[in-house]
Amino acid sequence: MNKVTVCRKAHFNAAHKLYNSDWTDARNTLVFGKCSNPNFHGHNYELIVSVKGPIHPETGFVMDMKELKKIMNEEIIDVFDHKNLNEEVAEFENLNPTAENISVVIWNKLRPLIDKKLELTVTLYETPRNFVIFSGE
Amino acid sequence: MNKVTVCRKAHFNAAHKLYNSDWTDARNTLVFGKCSNPNFHGHNYELIVSVKGPIHPETGFVMDMKELKKIMNEEIIDVFDHKNLNEEVAEFENLNPTAENISVVIWNKLRPLIDKKLELTVTLYETPRNFVIFSGE
Amino acid sequence: MNKVTVCRKAHFNAAHKLYNSDWTDARNTLVFGKCSNPNFHGHNYELIVSVKGPIHPETGFVMDMKELKKIMNEEIIDVFDHKNLNEEVAEFENLNPTAENISVVIWNKLRPLIDKKLELTVTLYETPRNFVIFSGE
Amino acid sequence: MNKVTVCRKAHFNAAHKLYNSDWTDARNTLVFGKCSNPNFHGHNYELIVSVKGPIHPETGFVMDMKELKKIMNEEIIDVFDHKNLNEEVAEFENLNPTAENISVVIWNKLRPLIDKKLELTVTLYETPRNFVIFSGE
Amino acid sequence: MNKVTVCRKAHFNAAHKLYNSDWTDARNTLVFGKCSNPNFHGHNYELIVSVKGPIHPETGFVMDMKELKKIMNEEIIDVFDHKNLNEEVAEFENLNPTAENISVVIWNKLRPLIDKKLELTVTLYETPRNFVIFSGE
Amino acid sequence: MNKVTVCRKAHFNAAHKLYNSDWTDARNTLVFGKCSNPNFHGHNYELIVSVKGPIHPETGFVMDMKELKKIMNEEIIDVFDHKNLNEEVAEFENLNPTAENISVVIWNKLRPLIDKKLELTVTLYETPRNFVIFSGE
Repeated sequence: MNKVTVCRKAHFNAAHKLYNSDWTDARNTLVFGKCSNPNFHGHNYELIVSVKGPIHPETGFVMDMKELKKIMNEEIIDVFDHKNLNEEVAEFENLNPTAENISVVIWNKLRPLIDKKLELTVTLYETPRNFVIFSGE
Repeated sequence: MNKVTVCRKAHFNAAHKLYNSDWTDARNTLVFGKCSNPNFHGHNYELIVSVKGPIHPETGFVMDMKELKKIMNEEIIDVFDHKNLNEEVAEFENLNPTAENISVVIWNKLRPLIDKKLELTVTLYETPRNFVIFSGE
Repeated sequence: MNKVTVCRKAHFNAAHKLYNSDWTDARNTLVFGKCSNPNFHGHNYELIVSVKGPIHPETGFVMDMKELKKIMNEEIIDVFDHKNLNEEVAEFENLNPTAENISVVIWNKLRPLIDKKLELTVTLYETPRNFVIFSGE
Repeated sequence: MNKVTVCRKAHFNAAHKLYNSDWTDARNTLVFGKCSNPNFHGHNYELIVSVKGPIHPETGFVMDMKELKKIMNEEIIDVFDHKNLNEEVAEFENLNPTAENISVVIWNKLRPLIDKKLELTVTLYETPRNFVIFSGE
Repeated sequence: MNKVTVCRKAHFNAAHKLYNSDWTDARNTLVFGKCSNPNFHGHNYELIVSVKGPIHPETGFVMDMKELKKIMNEEIIDVFDHKNLNEEVAEFENLNPTAENISVVIWNKLRPLIDKKLELTVTLYETPRNFVIFSGE
Repeated sequence: MNKVTVCRKAHFNAAHKLYNSDWTDARNTLVFGKCSNPNFHGHNYELIVSVKGPIHPETGFVMDMKELKKIMNEEIIDVFDHKNLNEEVAEFENLNPTAENISVVIWNKLRPLIDKKLELTVTLYETPRNFVIFSGE
């Protein structure tokens, strides 16, 4: 039973700032530099969701990409796109929206909706030069 | 005298919203949709600055790219990167920061600093799927 | 009145073969090589539509990209995507679907739907290594 | 003995349709949607073949890329490029040419030709937004 | 008679240094900085050759891309690839191999081999962040 | 404790040749072909450094990317950029600068400077079509 990883790209544009509300503003500036600008900055996030599992012999699919695309749109893109992550996405009310934390949030939102037998990995490009990968480890 | 166009890429990350302050909020939402989110969203802007002119016979350069890179950093990247364009960049105090308007603002900031004999073009990617080009016409 | 070019990317996947029905099969093979395979081959076409014109002072737009996206989807993507260009797209019934001819067909389909005051250019990538540009000249 | 993964890109253009010959046409359309168009559609497939193993101390190579390129051209590109996968590639006579199945076919064709001590992985982009990875698991 | 621009990409890897033999070494270092390193550095050059002209009604081609590819390989890639431009390419014996000058040399080598009725443009990426365009003006 | 992989891109341009000094020139040419050109050729190397570990609960970072960027610049970019790897980088005095060996050298230079609890991977693109990955195995 061949196990293949299938990957699907999507994208969303959002504003954020890096900020730890337990710290003073001075400490936020010291640690996060210009990323802590209180007026926010933003990114074109490119998201790759990967699922790994056996090929279904009847369809030749690991998972129907049309279904994965639908889940990604409903759970992630519709919620994050053209939003201010700090101000408008519930998960970041008390969580600093670093790329690392965003990837974990996305993974946790998708995991219950994807067959448990499939391994799930989230890759998130914050810029073309910075990206993160989370597999639920 | 061969005329060559020389192009240099740079990038900045910024927050913005599309907003016409002469309009009601309802009209802003009607025209600009989710781009008018009052909490802002953001982009990784990729900027290409092009200068066209004769090759200098001694250097083989149209313009020293080290000099162009320095001008781009000082005039554009240091001013726009990790900023909220609506709130923190003077040019957009009364100007809607659409990609079109941003490209004109960048062109106007660079034009006085580049030899008048060189033609100047600004290309600005707001996302990998949307971009604009302005040559001062 | 600043004139800016605004560009929007989209994509479609299609099958085609290069074939001149006025020629013998032998001549088709001689001229078009493996591109004339009677069983078809295919491409991921990447399409960039560019419109050039003055920035509207109220919106900061040359043209609302949401509107351009809608026109591109309805006129081109919905008609060409996952199709066999030779067999299923009326314009190619008697026209060889080379990248050159496809770009002209796309331009002709879009031209009547875009404000006459705006200049229109179609860029079409047949592969990442082959692409064409048509501006209605 | 340092183990490095060495990766080489190539590409081919092909037509295909998704189709299970054990099903009715109605069921094929229901499951595969526009991908089951009987007239075929197509893609620019981008292929990355990766081999992992120790660096040979005399050459500094894991495997001579010129040799890998030759194998990829003879076994895959010459056989798949500008072809109709369903109609002209023997492996898909009774196998649905999904990206998943294509990646397994490619892996099985390459495996006997590459040193058994090297791990082999095939990555296949069907479009810039959909890709699959197979490592023989 | 529709005029289309047809573009073809190729690539070569080469070493070079920027150096004006009429200058002292000190002046070369002052003007060209680390690019004048006497031991050379190098680039993956990406070349795009564009030809513009009417579509031939029988073929649907502006120019047969197989022919253009052959000319590019014979005249440019075979001559420049894996070479030291300063030491091994005759045109740069007394000409500084800046991207600007390389683009003019390529244009001059290709011009006599391409139908005079077709306009010729050479785009040369020295890096993904620096590129030049020459159209024979 | 979620473990995330964080990746940062950088780039350098360098000259090199493939050469084993224990071999005759004839054998070097036989094995390395045009890559053994004694006058050197060169590449735009694109480097991705990845570190994997738990997210720090206070910062939301696996590792501060500003710190990783600084280490990459000081240890790799400043040492390799615009250099002749064979002639000017001490590690390659007796080591053939294949992509494989360069990736191991980079890994060994970075490893002592990055927290031992973080896993380190180096990905190095020699060209957009050839790349290698080393994780210290």
